[in-house]
Amino acid sequence: MIKVPVIKVPGFLAGGVSSGVKNNGKKDLALIYSDTPAMAAGVFTKNIVKAPPVILGMERIKSGLCQAVLVNSGIANAFTGKLGYKDSVLTSKSLANLLGIGEELVIPSSTGVIGGRLPVDKIQKALPKLIKELREDGFKDFAEGIMTTDAFPKYACAHIKLGSKTGTIAVIGKGAGMIAPNMATMLCYILTDINLSKRALSKALSSAVSNSFNKIIVDGDTSTNDTVLLLSSGCLGNRTIPETGPEYTKFEKALTEAATQVAEMIVADGEGATKTVKIIVRGARTEKEAERIARTIGTSLLVKTAFFGEDPNWGRIVAAAGRAGVKFDPDKIDLYFGEHKVLSNSKEVMDEKKAKRILKNPKFEVTLNIKSGKASSFVIASDLTFEYVKINAHYRI
Amino acid sequence: MIKVPVIKVPGFLAGGVSSGVKNNGKKDLALIYSDTPAMAAGVFTKNIVKAPPVILGMERIKSGLCQAVLVNSGIANAFTGKLGYKDSVLTSKSLANLLGIGEELVIPSSTGVIGGRLPVDKIQKALPKLIKELREDGFKDFAEGIMTTDAFPKYACAHIKLGSKTGTIAVIGKGAGMIAPNMATMLCYILTDINLSKRALSKALSSAVSNSFNKIIVDGDTSTNDTVLLLSSGCLGNRTIPETGPEYTKFEKALTEAATQVAEMIVADGEGATKTVKIIVRGARTEKEAERIARTIGTSLLVKTAFFGEDPNWGRIVAAAGRAGVKFDPDKIDLYFGEHKVLSNSKEVMDEKKAKRILKNPKFEVTLNIKSGKASSFVIASDLTFEYVKINAHYRI
Repeated sequence: MIKVPVIKVPGFLAGGVSSGVKNNGKKDLALIYSDTPAMAAGVFTKNIVKAPPVILGMERIKSGLCQAVLVNSGIANAFTGKLGYKDSVLTSKSLANLLGIGEELVIPSSTGVIGGRLPVDKIQKALPKLIKELREDGFKDFAEGIMTTDAFPKYACAHIKLGSKTGTIAVIGKGAGMIAPNMATMLCYILTDINLSKRALSKALSSAVSNSFNKIIVDGDTSTNDTVLLLSSGCLGNRTIPETGPEYTKFEKALTEAATQVAEMIVADGEGATKTVKIIVRGARTEKEAERIARTIGTSLLVKTAFFGEDPNWGRIVAAAGRAGVKFDPDKIDLYFGEHKVLSNSKEVMDEKKAKRILKNPKFEVTLNIKSGKASSFVIASDLTFEYVKINAHYRI
Repeated sequence: MIKVPVIKVPGFLAGGVSSGVKNNGKKDLALIYSDTPAMAAGVFTKNIVKAPPVILGMERIKSGLCQAVLVNSGIANAFTGKLGYKDSVLTSKSLANLLGIGEELVIPSSTGVIGGRLPVDKIQKALPKLIKELREDGFKDFAEGIMTTDAFPKYACAHIKLGSKTGTIAVIGKGAGMIAPNMATMLCYILTDINLSKRALSKALSSAVSNSFNKIIVDGDTSTNDTVLLLSSGCLGNRTIPETGPEYTKFEKALTEAATQVAEMIVADGEGATKTVKIIVRGARTEKEAERIARTIGTSLLVKTAFFGEDPNWGRIVAAAGRAGVKFDPDKIDLYFGEHKVLSNSKEVMDEKKAKRILKNPKFEVTLNIKSGKASSFVIASDLTFEYVKINAHYRI
């Protein structure tokens, strides 16, 4: 269980209740509310099968403003067509009416089983209670309300100094390591009181996501519902941060760090995962090629099962690298488990005992240097375990 | 256990013995010998980390001739650099000397653990016995000699009429469904007495491989040692078949069918596999796009675990299709389990009981129609099971 700090972000209220979407009485409806329309940016799944709430969210975020985020868990409202879209419109409209705000300022999210319709009436009925529950410190309830297969709620917080003021960045997410389109959609909401320009907000979000959530692996399955939103209340009252300069850099760095913390929690909470492995590729010609190799290693079933077995089977890592579609000289590879060198110019120099000791840790690094250039990249992967097969073989039954 | 027919191909002898490469006394050295230099074509792994025997085989096949194929199992002679290359040269030279043929007419293959050197002396010592064991009906011994994690030897046979003569095509392979770079390399040797032009031989091999071995999935890991060879003794004495025309078409069809039989045996013998699933995608704009979608579905861990659980979880199939990087209208999908329609224009029409009954079979089809064009393709996939994780987590230990 990861310890959860109490999070407050000036300008925002949050809460979560049980509405009956889930059968087990657990929280399944969650809300973030901003006192005034917040500046907003978002990134969404690239799966062409997009759930209706994602389609609606993508339309509404274009204005750059958002005042409420309404999330339900239990049913993904995915693959439900025009009727599902109408359901998302309806529930967010009901919320907007109760809050007295424009419906276009509500962004909905759903996560859960694909194919079922939302119980609109249950959600509408629960909305007044949900609004009543809104509190400054309601983020734990919110985080619980968006959980599906998650074993624990996930959030992280960062603070940065801007002159005499201290701004807050809070990241609340859900998802379990082997990101699954069915019940383990990745959703993440990032809130800040720091005032940034519209462009700075989008730029920082893109950068942070590509260096945190987009680096986690996962079983390679992209959800129909994946969503990351960044909302800024601007309550800190700082001078608007533009898209370049030292203040922007500071913000982007803090945002990336907090997002990485939540991303690592998602991997650690992987369905059945026992290992969190950072796979770093150095010496590539481009960052893209480095990432391609890292991703091929991180998604290899043979590599992932070897991690689970704590087996320093470097042959599988090298073979996975070789089929990534990137050219390099296979006779010049250096490979490390942690700090321990395993291959030097493709000759084995491994101390088996040392290597095994490193692989016994729940968290370790694997570094591959292909000596073709100066670019590097990484992914964060979980292992593949009996539990994963168990959870996913009989999921709907 | 699959019943194995007695195979004889005029012009060829085969055999297999134990040389001590494997520690357990099982057969580990196998030989195919052609009375005269056979016409030969080959396809090899696309992994850039190619084992030395593959590199040597690729050089030698350029002549279009081959008289002996020497295969060892137990050690892959992969990632062994120049020394490993020299080992392959040495063992095939020793064989050539004993047989009294040119060493460039020997093609070597190795399969087993990556990283270890070949015990050249043991192999050299066993060669006279191996040659002595050569027999017309020695293909079962050969098939056993090339096995690693395989539960049973794999071969298939086809006959075609050419005028008054009947030609033979024999396919002998090894590999276990979740093709693994470590011990489950895919090797296949195809022998025929039918006389074909050099071009016809290459063309037929490419076509047969792309419609059989290249359609099986597998865990997506490509071996450092994968090899498929086609040898023709020409002993049938038929008029040389050119690269087009009805006789060529007949040959290619029979070759593809026999290769598909062995490919399906490889999937059925998958590490821990309980299901062999043909995933067919229709209505794509191009064959390539159809295959891309089929491959994404067939490699999805979530789909594979659902097959293991016999769970008709169509949401996972659709979500996998959506992230394949191919554009289609997600509101117009038809999906079938066997003959049973599950989605009609993306509306669920599944009879859960019927669907489950189909998934209970060890072999079934899943058909997706995306209605964007007229092209189609398929893959043959296994499921993902506890056994797979077990076999691969502690493989080297």
